[in-house]
Amino acid sequence: MTETAYRVIGQRVPKVDGVERAIGSALYGTDLRLPGMLHGKVLRSPHAHARIVRIDTSRAEALPGVLAVVTRDDFPELEPGTTAPLGEIPIDLVSLTRLIMAREKALYVGHPVAAVAASDPHVADAALALIDVEYKVLPPVTTIEQALAADAPLLHERLMTAGVEPPPTKPSNVSRRTVLERGDVAASLAAADVVVERRYRADAAHQGYLEPVAAVAQAEPDGRVTVWTSTQGTFTVEWQLSVLLKMPMSRLRVVPLEVGGAFGGKIYAHVEPLCVRLAQKAGRPVRIVLTREEVLRATGPGAATIAEVKVGAQRDGTLTALEVRMWMEAGAFPGSPVANALLVGGAPYKVANLRLEGFDVVANKPRVEPYRGPGGPQANFAVEQAMDELAQRLGLDPLDLRRRNAVAAGDLLPTGRPLPEVGLAQVFDAVARHPCWTDPLPTGRHPRGRGLAIGFWHGQSFTSSCQVAVTGDGTLSVTIGAVDITGIRTALAQVAAEEFGLRVDQVAIQTGDTETSGYSDVAAGSRTARTMAAAVGGACREALARLKERAAARLECAVEDIAYVEQRFLVKGIPERAIGLAQLARLTMVEAGGPVIAEGVTQRMPAAPTFAAHVADVEVDPATGKVGVLRFTAFQDVGRAINPTQVEGQMQGGAVQGIGWALSEGEDFDERGWMRNASLLDYRMPTALDVPPIDCVIVEVPAPDVPYGMRGVGEVPIVPPAAAVANAVARALGERVAHMPMTPERVLRALRGDAFGQV
Amino acid sequence: MTETAYRVIGQRVPKVDGVERAIGSALYGTDLRLPGMLHGKVLRSPHAHARIVRIDTSRAEALPGVLAVVTRDDFPELEPGTTAPLGEIPIDLVSLTRLIMAREKALYVGHPVAAVAASDPHVADAALALIDVEYKVLPPVTTIEQALAADAPLLHERLMTAGVEPPPTKPSNVSRRTVLERGDVAASLAAADVVVERRYRADAAHQGYLEPVAAVAQAEPDGRVTVWTSTQGTFTVEWQLSVLLKMPMSRLRVVPLEVGGAFGGKIYAHVEPLCVRLAQKAGRPVRIVLTREEVLRATGPGAATIAEVKVGAQRDGTLTALEVRMWMEAGAFPGSPVANALLVGGAPYKVANLRLEGFDVVANKPRVEPYRGPGGPQANFAVEQAMDELAQRLGLDPLDLRRRNAVAAGDLLPTGRPLPEVGLAQVFDAVARHPCWTDPLPTGRHPRGRGLAIGFWHGQSFTSSCQVAVTGDGTLSVTIGAVDITGIRTALAQVAAEEFGLRVDQVAIQTGDTETSGYSDVAAGSRTARTMAAAVGGACREALARLKERAAARLECAVEDIAYVEQRFLVKGIPERAIGLAQLARLTMVEAGGPVIAEGVTQRMPAAPTFAAHVADVEVDPATGKVGVLRFTAFQDVGRAINPTQVEGQMQGGAVQGIGWALSEGEDFDERGWMRNASLLDYRMPTALDVPPIDCVIVEVPAPDVPYGMRGVGEVPIVPPAAAVANAVARALGERVAHMPMTPERVLRALRGDAFGQV
Repeated sequence: MTETAYRVIGQRVPKVDGVERAIGSALYGTDLRLPGMLHGKVLRSPHAHARIVRIDTSRAEALPGVLAVVTRDDFPELEPGTTAPLGEIPIDLVSLTRLIMAREKALYVGHPVAAVAASDPHVADAALALIDVEYKVLPPVTTIEQALAADAPLLHERLMTAGVEPPPTKPSNVSRRTVLERGDVAASLAAADVVVERRYRADAAHQGYLEPVAAVAQAEPDGRVTVWTSTQGTFTVEWQLSVLLKMPMSRLRVVPLEVGGAFGGKIYAHVEPLCVRLAQKAGRPVRIVLTREEVLRATGPGAATIAEVKVGAQRDGTLTALEVRMWMEAGAFPGSPVANALLVGGAPYKVANLRLEGFDVVANKPRVEPYRGPGGPQANFAVEQAMDELAQRLGLDPLDLRRRNAVAAGDLLPTGRPLPEVGLAQVFDAVARHPCWTDPLPTGRHPRGRGLAIGFWHGQSFTSSCQVAVTGDGTLSVTIGAVDITGIRTALAQVAAEEFGLRVDQVAIQTGDTETSGYSDVAAGSRTARTMAAAVGGACREALARLKERAAARLECAVEDIAYVEQRFLVKGIPERAIGLAQLARLTMVEAGGPVIAEGVTQRMPAAPTFAAHVADVEVDPATGKVGVLRFTAFQDVGRAINPTQVEGQMQGGAVQGIGWALSEGEDFDERGWMRNASLLDYRMPTALDVPPIDCVIVEVPAPDVPYGMRGVGEVPIVPPAAAVANAVARALGERVAHMPMTPERVLRALRGDAFGQV
Repeated sequence: MTETAYRVIGQRVPKVDGVERAIGSALYGTDLRLPGMLHGKVLRSPHAHARIVRIDTSRAEALPGVLAVVTRDDFPELEPGTTAPLGEIPIDLVSLTRLIMAREKALYVGHPVAAVAASDPHVADAALALIDVEYKVLPPVTTIEQALAADAPLLHERLMTAGVEPPPTKPSNVSRRTVLERGDVAASLAAADVVVERRYRADAAHQGYLEPVAAVAQAEPDGRVTVWTSTQGTFTVEWQLSVLLKMPMSRLRVVPLEVGGAFGGKIYAHVEPLCVRLAQKAGRPVRIVLTREEVLRATGPGAATIAEVKVGAQRDGTLTALEVRMWMEAGAFPGSPVANALLVGGAPYKVANLRLEGFDVVANKPRVEPYRGPGGPQANFAVEQAMDELAQRLGLDPLDLRRRNAVAAGDLLPTGRPLPEVGLAQVFDAVARHPCWTDPLPTGRHPRGRGLAIGFWHGQSFTSSCQVAVTGDGTLSVTIGAVDITGIRTALAQVAAEEFGLRVDQVAIQTGDTETSGYSDVAAGSRTARTMAAAVGGACREALARLKERAAARLECAVEDIAYVEQRFLVKGIPERAIGLAQLARLTMVEAGGPVIAEGVTQRMPAAPTFAAHVADVEVDPATGKVGVLRFTAFQDVGRAINPTQVEGQMQGGAVQGIGWALSEGEDFDERGWMRNASLLDYRMPTALDVPPIDCVIVEVPAPDVPYGMRGVGEVPIVPPAAAVANAVARALGERVAHMPMTPERVLRALRGDAFGQV
């Protein structure tokens, strides 16, 4: 199908699930009620670091209305090295089982130590108060600096840093060192005409999904278990449950519910294993819905980070060296996205001498979880400020500086792999001619500045499966194995309608559960729409090919002589010998040929890296330190926009989350490891009053070797906003704020000359 | 796979859905509750025959708590000749739309004329009382004789009898005449040594399912509709709804619930279209659950029948002629199973001269619906009594008489098609050597008799689809498109476990809805287990073949060199080069090859006709006319018993329903067309106290050209019981009771010489 022939692809079709979400009939995790359902609650550690000596649940079990209590004793120990796959990435389940229910130690404030199921939530709360836990409290580690100190308390007594030579002889709080390197950075920094050097810091920020973590489990006496959950990956959760609970997958069924926001935070199992064990013990269905406070205290944020950046360049602006050192706080167990962060930091620029070094650091805080473009905003905040500072130092236009040094197809990524064709040059062109860049910055009451940052995201592919069934009246039913967190049902219905020459409302589309759909990996990593579109398109073409065979048999001609035009199969050259799609579909159902169901599977599709550029105009009140964003424009190469409205939604959503982290969102811990802002009053997400309309400019440079040329669109828009805003602030104030979020306090500090901005 | 290799097939595996049904967690039609759900109720005609002049719903609509009222005006008229398929059989939807909601006329007592949806059932009842319907009452037709009378009132003013030459010039209450004929029956009856001639009668009997008809519909404002229903065919209902409501299938989703009994009575849509229209008007989900009285008054029974049989034979017992004339009461609209009945009556015997003639007769009663072996019990009751009477007249053993005249492979059925290989001879052998036949009949207080009857069922094949997915740990998930009314999930799990060398608990199996499973026809016609087993077996073999390809790629050998032995893929001759099923499954998911999902489709599989023989010992109290069944043994050629316990369950269930119809179940109408026994107190189904244990003898003569050699087992066991009991009664009393049910009154009448036994 040639691009010009697209009829449905590229249209701004309304969301197929829009109405049911708008009127409240869509079923979210917190909506499901089963007959006899119990309410589960979780007892959480009040200590950031403590050995669990003894747990006595007998008083709780004796409380009328309590039907089950579980503790660490209800979860089997796993063999060292046990993993479950997240796409091709193995997840450490020995840690995950401890994260879900503390075993030897409580490692953060909020770490689950027991859970109860009771006939009503108040009884469950009362039961929690009756569980006696004896702790041996240990000194906590609550900052990266504390974790790295020579005499730091150790979270894990046998944690040896991987990736260092010679291997360490003593345990530490650093789980891994990652290095990506080419050329000679030290020599080229020494020889550079100009070197910019600065230390940056990012607080942890929560995904901030609207719907709290929620799940329901029902266990049959014969061992079968059904779990309804608001998750990004039904199969991923099933796999984790299967290993964590030592149950074959044939006994598990994970049913997706609508997801009220996830952003990476609903990939790992949280309460599902607790629900299952409670349901098994109680013999009744059990639901757990976390409170907002529990979500903030005990589910993983994006990682707190320290980054040191050195950029060396010639006087003409040609980059000669880039050095980045990052320390990322993983929380209670290893696993920060520091490798991703290094890639995001180093990918956009063609620089001969590169050294990216990262450290994964554990601390007594909630374990980090993926957050949209994991690690990207933190790295970008550092490197893109350094680039901006370099432009200032050299007196160059920041767009020209970036364009001069930007990577292009064939250039090597920091991983050593060559970059395929990308639309970065076209993004620069779009910025250069856009009024947001060419308009003069209007003056106002307070100092103003305009900032630019570019961002990169590599993305995943993983595995996606779907089935396309032709129904009896020639409409389509498409079942996908991946959940829809970004509007993919609409985009995929468009793809199927396109391939079959149907209207979108002639395509029914839904996510199956783990028993009724083919294995698909999580909806994450900017992978889902792109890989699933390829799967759906392939399945549609396969279904059409099979229908052509049936049409040929009926029209008594060779299958090669059948053409499909406007929902009719006709004999080429004899258009009156034809059969309609609806009629043929009916006949295949009931008479001959058999119903047509075609599968589509994609696996390890070529990567489709993507670039964005954001331009922010800000005004800063020097008396209060408050930063106001006046104008914000997001440019992005999306490869192909199946539904531009939805693509813009992703760009706008990412930008707003990025602006939130830039200016107000940061988790704030006291020295005992207690989060001080564990409510949405204190953890300050932007409201509609805090952000201007986000203008979007879609650039379409089709990704090579990817069906429809689609690139992932979900993650890159969160990468550059903080740097774009920071660069605008720096140009407004003449001072850099190197700590995100750039709260009024930190802006004031910067104005007083404390560039690091630590409050 | 050779028979001797079967490891799971043939085992008495417990039902996979047994526990959830036993403990009450299975979700039936009456269990589902949706948020905001309304209660629907149906206003029904109190007249058996009346023109509907006017319906005024305004008072009902004004009642607080009433959210929607629907009448005939809410359902579109259909083009004449509009059908929807039931397998290959087109269903007349112009009648069905009038059956679901009366249009020009009310045609039976209980015919829906309006429906309401209200916030609670009592408000709905009150609203029904506020609907004003103006009827013009017409004289009703309530018996076959009345319907056939020259001056009979006409139900349908334009109904012309089909199948007569020359075509009639006047309308009548006979919709169709069917004739199956070979040889010269009149001449051979005239030349016969002995002729037995008798008229038989059967009352209508209800399917008597435990769970009443129930459905829930939810309509989204964007036009999408989901229907949860207790049905035998999700796709069949979807198709009917799609045509009746003029909605594309892509806007409809029909979700199966567990079915609490159906027996043919849950194939046609009943309340589903009402639920949908009410839900659309109310903007809230609507549930309708019929009361038992509504089920009896207004859903279709098996057809009341009159049959005249003449059998001619030589003195040695060789049959020379068989003539059967049957009139079957279709109820309000044409469509009795008279053609099936003729086939059942004529199929078992090799007789050169055969004439089977049937008439489909409409009357002002509920429209008949399929009931297990539709038409079979009524025809068998007549022909097998005639055969028994012939044996008595000739002084021959009734088993010998049947064996001498029985059909065998290659003989022609009454339809003219040759019979494939069947196990009738083996069934006779089994009877001949069984104690139920060879034991002397013990004497008792009252006269006793032993009766034999044989039965035939042809069965359907239609279309069946499934998907078999290999999960990440090498277990299986099987999704079928057909609902499970007979235990097929267990049998199919056995088939999948057999093919993959797994345990049954390593196979998850479920019925998908119309969007997540492939098109499959109704669970009916003794077709489902057999055709779906072929589909599942084929899909499993396809899945294994694909796994072998992936194993070959990994083990670096040709796919032909891969053997699959005990959940391991190994290189033939080098058993240490192997990969386990679980490991391979994981690798295909996440690394290479892609997840394996295979479809299985069967369509128009070869027929697998089946024969049964039943032997009944009865005792008859001549003072009361009460018949007691002392001993009952069912023999059946099942081809292959995948799960003998379930096969026996089918044999026993059919026998008990046949005994019920034989002795106590019959719908009783007064002259106005009101059913007199519309409750389970008065409509007398057998209880455990009324039937002896049913002994089962399974005969296995594999059906040719059918995977695993399975035959349909569900229907034939209801065919011979009434005749077997009647023959026992005749031998106990010396008089024939020719009217079923053979109630005490009818038995007493027979003892007084009224052989027709009309009460």
